[in-house]
Amino acid sequence: MNRIYFDNAATTPLDPEVVEAMMPYLTERFGNPSSIYSYGRETRMAVERARKSVALLLHANPGEIFFTSGGTESSNTAIVAAIRDLGCSRVISSPIEHHATLHATGFFRETGLCSLEQVSLGENGQVDLDSLDRMLQRAAGKTLVSLMHANNEIGNLLDMEQAAAICQKHGAIFHCDTVQTVGHYPIDLKKIPVHFITAASHKFHGPKGVGMLYVNESVRIRPLIHGGSQERNLRAGTENVYGIVGFARALEISLAELEKTSVQIRELRDDMAGKLLERIPGLQFNGDLRGRSLYTVLSISLPRTERTEMILMNLDMKGICASGGSACTSGASTGSHVINALHPGEDRVAIRFSFSKYNTPQEVDEVVRQLSELI
Amino acid sequence: MNRIYFDNAATTPLDPEVVEAMMPYLTERFGNPSSIYSYGRETRMAVERARKSVALLLHANPGEIFFTSGGTESSNTAIVAAIRDLGCSRVISSPIEHHATLHATGFFRETGLCSLEQVSLGENGQVDLDSLDRMLQRAAGKTLVSLMHANNEIGNLLDMEQAAAICQKHGAIFHCDTVQTVGHYPIDLKKIPVHFITAASHKFHGPKGVGMLYVNESVRIRPLIHGGSQERNLRAGTENVYGIVGFARALEISLAELEKTSVQIRELRDDMAGKLLERIPGLQFNGDLRGRSLYTVLSISLPRTERTEMILMNLDMKGICASGGSACTSGASTGSHVINALHPGEDRVAIRFSFSKYNTPQEVDEVVRQLSELI
Repeated sequence: MNRIYFDNAATTPLDPEVVEAMMPYLTERFGNPSSIYSYGRETRMAVERARKSVALLLHANPGEIFFTSGGTESSNTAIVAAIRDLGCSRVISSPIEHHATLHATGFFRETGLCSLEQVSLGENGQVDLDSLDRMLQRAAGKTLVSLMHANNEIGNLLDMEQAAAICQKHGAIFHCDTVQTVGHYPIDLKKIPVHFITAASHKFHGPKGVGMLYVNESVRIRPLIHGGSQERNLRAGTENVYGIVGFARALEISLAELEKTSVQIRELRDDMAGKLLERIPGLQFNGDLRGRSLYTVLSISLPRTERTEMILMNLDMKGICASGGSACTSGASTGSHVINALHPGEDRVAIRFSFSKYNTPQEVDEVVRQLSELI
Repeated sequence: MNRIYFDNAATTPLDPEVVEAMMPYLTERFGNPSSIYSYGRETRMAVERARKSVALLLHANPGEIFFTSGGTESSNTAIVAAIRDLGCSRVISSPIEHHATLHATGFFRETGLCSLEQVSLGENGQVDLDSLDRMLQRAAGKTLVSLMHANNEIGNLLDMEQAAAICQKHGAIFHCDTVQTVGHYPIDLKKIPVHFITAASHKFHGPKGVGMLYVNESVRIRPLIHGGSQERNLRAGTENVYGIVGFARALEISLAELEKTSVQIRELRDDMAGKLLERIPGLQFNGDLRGRSLYTVLSISLPRTERTEMILMNLDMKGICASGGSACTSGASTGSHVINALHPGEDRVAIRFSFSKYNTPQEVDEVVRQLSELI
């Protein structure tokens, strides 16, 4: 069966060019980058070349780029460090953050290391930046603001520059989970006063198991994982060399193609949104589709019926991959915390379609046809 | 130039069969294991198959095996959990542990979360288990004992069973850093009352960036990295699927070949030790070479002269890869903390040679010849 993969916010297929860039480091170039001899020097150079490339693409300094095992580790490192090393005793976040942020900040609140407050959300789930401003005006200790750039389930996009400016005005530390946007938007860190951003290369056709943490040079933090002096003493453990090489290559390709692919993907999404609205009665969109919205994500909501309840399973049987919310919660029976936060008590079924450069208009038509038939 | 790689304790070349097992997950099988549709189910199955295989090989239950990003993360998770979740207010360790243990336990001592005591070492650097027994007799709160199975720099091998029995007798939590021994020794966790062991597959011809933490089912711990519900809520973040598949394949191959390769590697090491002793005046061995010793490691010590000081660089120029201590410290000018702990104040030069199944007797003869000429 031909599969149609419309779950690119969960993970993406690797770009063959990325795999090609990784292969030498899975075969003959296997040295430990901390070793001083030839095998070590060639992998050390590969890691530092990757760091420079990523820094250049994000308009950061190489000294601000740290490689990790993924977006979740990156966010955890930022949150731990803000509370433990930068003196943040108060965290302001939102109820629709990724679990990496929700559960890390929740853990530190439980253990009494910080207080935790939630910003207000607008009707479509957009963060109310005026509410953030007012909360920061109320002096209550050094504050960490942790808000995601794009929501992974409904695609809402934060005005990162404005959020960063508000944090800067009040002297707050700002961590922005950019896992869904790095590789999908141009990000210029010279222009945005953010302290931490995060990335995971498997969200933009790179390998799993490797991520990045940007730490603005104005802050000095200590590691989450202690040990060897890798990553300039910020992240111990032998470097995942081919992962790091793959991360950089994937980002290089994504940003080089961005102008073309972003238009192409947005057209697919808008085309699908229009066609579904036309054909399926009672359909609504989750999030701020017509406003500030991640162009790769389309989240729809359907009245709960016997048919819509089984819809993901039936789509799967037709070879169509989509998800109920984030991948992390897709198996859970409690439903999505994001949808529940936006529409408490509403008994509807959510489906997320998310697109990549490998998707086609024919696939959109096929999914629209199958979905209409199934409902 | 033909390179001779004698630094397998730092990292090992990947076995081509391991790369072959990984490739499908770097190409067509890219799904997120948390996704419920076909792409997700096939990677979920791959991860769980890997877990079962690793559990079987270590005589553990699959529910006791957790995949991480490497040995350092695994040791950090164990140490954090013992102090935070299991109530250990006192840590007993040794001055010659890997930096992952030294720096993690040191960090928690500094921040006042635990006290830290060091066991005595015998003449050759072997842990004095009677001293451990006596220290544990002195009641001083719940204790974590963190001792490595084999020392990565000098190869000393702990009697893990006896150490575990002593810990069990006193109700202490036992974390054993087995990064140098998993894949190189048969380990039967049904017979050893240890709470935590660790592994990193790049030490036995598997990929970098993936490790394992064994957590005995008798203890319940919380994560170091919070977020999604991966690894049964113990380690959040999208799974490094091809890394995990590679880890399991590498362990399967290593243990299947163990009877043959361990004999072959031990012969190389003993042959080299004998030949070096014969040819190089003033040569000594670091550690307990003739006693309990990891068969993959040969650490020698030479009087400091103009020639021996430059020896690693000169070996490198001949295409021979060896290290001064661990890879993690090879660039540091302070020298090895292990050698310094064993021979304080002695002005000698240490060289570690470490072997794998890919090394040959011809390589040993060539390195002996070159080394003799250089000195």
